Amino acid sequence: MTVHTDYLFFHTKKRQEIVRITDEVAGIVAKSGVREGIVLVSAMHITAGVYVNDWEGGLIEDIQEWLEKLAPARSDYRHHHTGEDNADAHLKRTVLGHQVVLPITAGALDLGPWEQVFYAEFDGQRRKRVVVKVMGLA
Amino acid sequence: MTVHTDYLFFHTKKRQEIVRITDEVAGIVAKSGVREGIVLVSAMHITAGVYVNDWEGGLIEDIQEWLEKLAPARSDYRHHHTGEDNADAHLKRTVLGHQVVLPITAGALDLGPWEQVFYAEFDGQRRKRVVVKVMGLA
Amino acid sequence: MTVHTDYLFFHTKKRQEIVRITDEVAGIVAKSGVREGIVLVSAMHITAGVYVNDWEGGLIEDIQEWLEKLAPARSDYRHHHTGEDNADAHLKRTVLGHQVVLPITAGALDLGPWEQVFYAEFDGQRRKRVVVKVMGLA
Repeated sequence: MTVHTDYLFFHTKKRQEIVRITDEVAGIVAKSGVREGIVLVSAMHITAGVYVNDWEGGLIEDIQEWLEKLAPARSDYRHHHTGEDNADAHLKRTVLGHQVVLPITAGALDLGPWEQVFYAEFDGQRRKRVVVKVMGLA
Repeated sequence: MTVHTDYLFFHTKKRQEIVRITDEVAGIVAKSGVREGIVLVSAMHITAGVYVNDWEGGLIEDIQEWLEKLAPARSDYRHHHTGEDNADAHLKRTVLGHQVVLPITAGALDLGPWEQVFYAEFDGQRRKRVVVKVMGLA
Repeated sequence: MTVHTDYLFFHTKKRQEIVRITDEVAGIVAKSGVREGIVLVSAMHITAGVYVNDWEGGLIEDIQEWLEKLAPARSDYRHHHTGEDNADAHLKRTVLGHQVVLPITAGALDLGPWEQVFYAEFDGQRRKRVVVKVMGLA
């Protein structure tokens, strides 16, 4: 069995940003040599998410607007008594999910035709990290 | 180590439908011969989900009604400018989750007494697919 | 490859309670001897969750209050026709998630600086269980 670990780094210009990472994950899988197995893609910061959905600009904006409704930026969260101002980011990433496990079949990501992997930043403008852990048979 | 891949297919009669798949997943695990490991069960379409919860008709209806409230079908999503009409399906599957990883212990799914696995369709009436990836020691 | 299985048990005093379990999971990983791999941490009851977020009391209360708003305790769920009174617990755990997969690198949990693992009870005051499945190279 092969286990291969890699990291993706992000430093978004805007506080909230959604970044497609399918190709980067596929590249790490190829580098690992794993042909049958899985890959875990997981945000290492608790104000960011990783999710699988459609690569369509309108839907990406719909998701952001919808998350703002479900988990609005507000000043009166208890978390803000610590001096933080990002409680909504912790909640938004909870709805969206912070990790995915993708199957690897015949040496490639085994995704449906419309499945794309995204990094979702909710408190950016600083360096953030995603771990990519590949496991399986080479 | 053994890695075994299989697929489940769905073609629901209604646009939204929740289908229990615990037995189908257990059958694939048995076929794989894996006795200690995990199995990934993941929707390959981005308007469907896979989740673990109660096999009780009332709760299943509660979940569907609740998702309709959190992520309502509406005409004014930006995604619909592409000609699509299923933005709510993309959001509903986000709340519910699109994949689960189940432990396999002593050759069987290691589930609690009430845990059941479900496929949740939010834009059906066409052929959809779920990947089942088993990994572990035979 | 090594596969190691363990269980964590909970019996909370309050109906709803959030319990940090990072150290318990790390202890099981150490015991397993796995140095490169993953660990699945999954609630075996369908009214509880497992999630990764901040270990900060204010945020933990924010999360509980927010879940109460998204999935309120109410008497009129269909699930309650069975005699149950915990439909909201099934929904709250759906938003929060019921499992996480954590990477293991160089013999330890490979977590970001603020990542902590929590067990979230929504219908406690009775014995509950979480499965911890470690898989990888020793």
